[in-house]
Amino acid sequence: MITAKARAVDGPDKPFRPAEIKRRDLDLHDVLIEIKYAGICHSDIHTAHGEWGPVHYPLVPGHEIAGVVTAVGPNVTKYKVGDRVGVGCMVDSCGECENCLKGEEQYCLKGNIQTYAGVDKYGEPTQGGYSTHIVVSEDFVLRIPDNIEFDVAAPLLCAGITTYSPLKHWGAAPGKNVAIVGMGGLGHMAVQIAHAMGAEVTVLSQTLKKKEDGLELGADHYYATSDPETFEKLAGTFDLIINTVSAKINLDAYLGLLALDGTLVNVGAPAEPLSVGVMNLIGHRRSFAGSMIGGIRETQEMLDFCAKHNIVPKIEVISADQIDEAYERVLASDVKYRFVIDISTM
Amino acid sequence: MITAKARAVDGPDKPFRPAEIKRRDLDLHDVLIEIKYAGICHSDIHTAHGEWGPVHYPLVPGHEIAGVVTAVGPNVTKYKVGDRVGVGCMVDSCGECENCLKGEEQYCLKGNIQTYAGVDKYGEPTQGGYSTHIVVSEDFVLRIPDNIEFDVAAPLLCAGITTYSPLKHWGAAPGKNVAIVGMGGLGHMAVQIAHAMGAEVTVLSQTLKKKEDGLELGADHYYATSDPETFEKLAGTFDLIINTVSAKINLDAYLGLLALDGTLVNVGAPAEPLSVGVMNLIGHRRSFAGSMIGGIRETQEMLDFCAKHNIVPKIEVISADQIDEAYERVLASDVKYRFVIDISTM
Repeated sequence: MITAKARAVDGPDKPFRPAEIKRRDLDLHDVLIEIKYAGICHSDIHTAHGEWGPVHYPLVPGHEIAGVVTAVGPNVTKYKVGDRVGVGCMVDSCGECENCLKGEEQYCLKGNIQTYAGVDKYGEPTQGGYSTHIVVSEDFVLRIPDNIEFDVAAPLLCAGITTYSPLKHWGAAPGKNVAIVGMGGLGHMAVQIAHAMGAEVTVLSQTLKKKEDGLELGADHYYATSDPETFEKLAGTFDLIINTVSAKINLDAYLGLLALDGTLVNVGAPAEPLSVGVMNLIGHRRSFAGSMIGGIRETQEMLDFCAKHNIVPKIEVISADQIDEAYERVLASDVKYRFVIDISTM
Repeated sequence: MITAKARAVDGPDKPFRPAEIKRRDLDLHDVLIEIKYAGICHSDIHTAHGEWGPVHYPLVPGHEIAGVVTAVGPNVTKYKVGDRVGVGCMVDSCGECENCLKGEEQYCLKGNIQTYAGVDKYGEPTQGGYSTHIVVSEDFVLRIPDNIEFDVAAPLLCAGITTYSPLKHWGAAPGKNVAIVGMGGLGHMAVQIAHAMGAEVTVLSQTLKKKEDGLELGADHYYATSDPETFEKLAGTFDLIINTVSAKINLDAYLGLLALDGTLVNVGAPAEPLSVGVMNLIGHRRSFAGSMIGGIRETQEMLDFCAKHNIVPKIEVISADQIDEAYERVLASDVKYRFVIDISTM
């Protein structure tokens, strides 16, 4: 067993504390990664606070992981010591169901194994990236391109793929009119990716506070959703809307912004159900859809795409002692645009 | 002006009465049609009863129209006297917007002109097919293939295209698992069309009462939605679900039946909004969509498809005096599967 330093929480309203956790000995196809940076995702906060169901405490969150391979199991072929690698939201899946066989492991019919707050195939609770080391099957390890630094690579593993996948799936491309709802950790990635895919990009944010950043990142237009005129002016405009906001929204108002055959894709799930006026869909053959991260093959494709187009998140690096404070600031929307923990401070 | 005999209602709770209505003189591109049969669609009832907003009474419903061309305007090129033709849910559109130019006149950005309860480009209220004659621009007239009788042709113009269009658009084909919710006027067409497209077809009906008909029409499987086991057994099964039921359904239960990337399409709009659990979409990249009739080109394609595959509705022919009674029976779901008025009894 390998001992790793980590930051853990002991309950829904407990602060983070230094901890030591065990990582399994390397199995045939396992890779040991020394973690350099780990991003803080809003999901980490929901899970740590027990808002998404019962959690096995102590919990070490973190599913935006970037680091270096320091050891490999005897049968590993994809990675070698010294490789720059990443791990995202999942560390395993059944590998046998039709979705896994299609490379859509995130939709594994038996449920993928999440990087933390899951149970691995050995029956042990999984622990995430707020930690100095992690052991992961090589099939769930990504290669970080050389021109992407570790600190900005980390958020790509969740915020990047969560937005890249639906943009790719629903055809963001030249000639397509794409709106991004929300200008946070996910939104500011979606803007860059959609722009690099060649789409015309509009940000729909509550206010115009981050307009300058949005335009700099590649948005062609920027509107405040707090202004009712926005919904009149943009009615029937978009081929694709990616909604990165998990809070409950007025779905009908946003569906009204879609053109014929347009799709509104939620990448976050509000806790309460949403209300949808069906005529709003029928009248323009619109769709309301959902999307969850991406498969491993597609995650690698996303990393290579970001490397090619020089796409990285805007981040604020923090030390391990600042996690609680960072959580508070995320909840107050006071982050531009992703906190990333420097694991050397662990 | 041409005088036509018709059946009209004078108010939301008034019975049908014999009436005489005026049809406009033939404009350059107009076709005069002597109507042989007109189907009764549930929409006729909603509209006649004023349930879909204010209506100009007296009202002559009917948008499933089959008949013969008896005169043509001087510039008509597509049809000649004696041609067997049909008219569906719309009789005009702007012809200039991007949706019209794509041949999707049903989604005309200025609003298509409905066959009845609309206002035509001359400013006159439109009156539908419960009538001996109608005048329609040749661009909104369909050709009825020779091997489809007039009486069974009529319902194809609404029930046929309303189900054909989403089945085609969302790719019903060999290897696809398609469910049809509801075994009524629309549902019994959807079963035949999906089967002819090569899909594996499942009917989801409240009870098993019409199972024999369903299987005879081409369904491979037939389940009762009143049985909760149906939803467990078929979870994650379908690539496409066409919901022909306009009543409010438990959307989340039906979404749970979709496989990865599956789509549930409503072709009817419940009066109240539906509730949707977003995680239900995200977890399997599912979509909830809507579809409305079809364009003129696609409607012709549907007629030719039905002719080729010997697809016709099951109908019950009634006389003009039986319309009120037929409405009551439609509301009581006591029709297999479409009432068609013999206009010679007008």
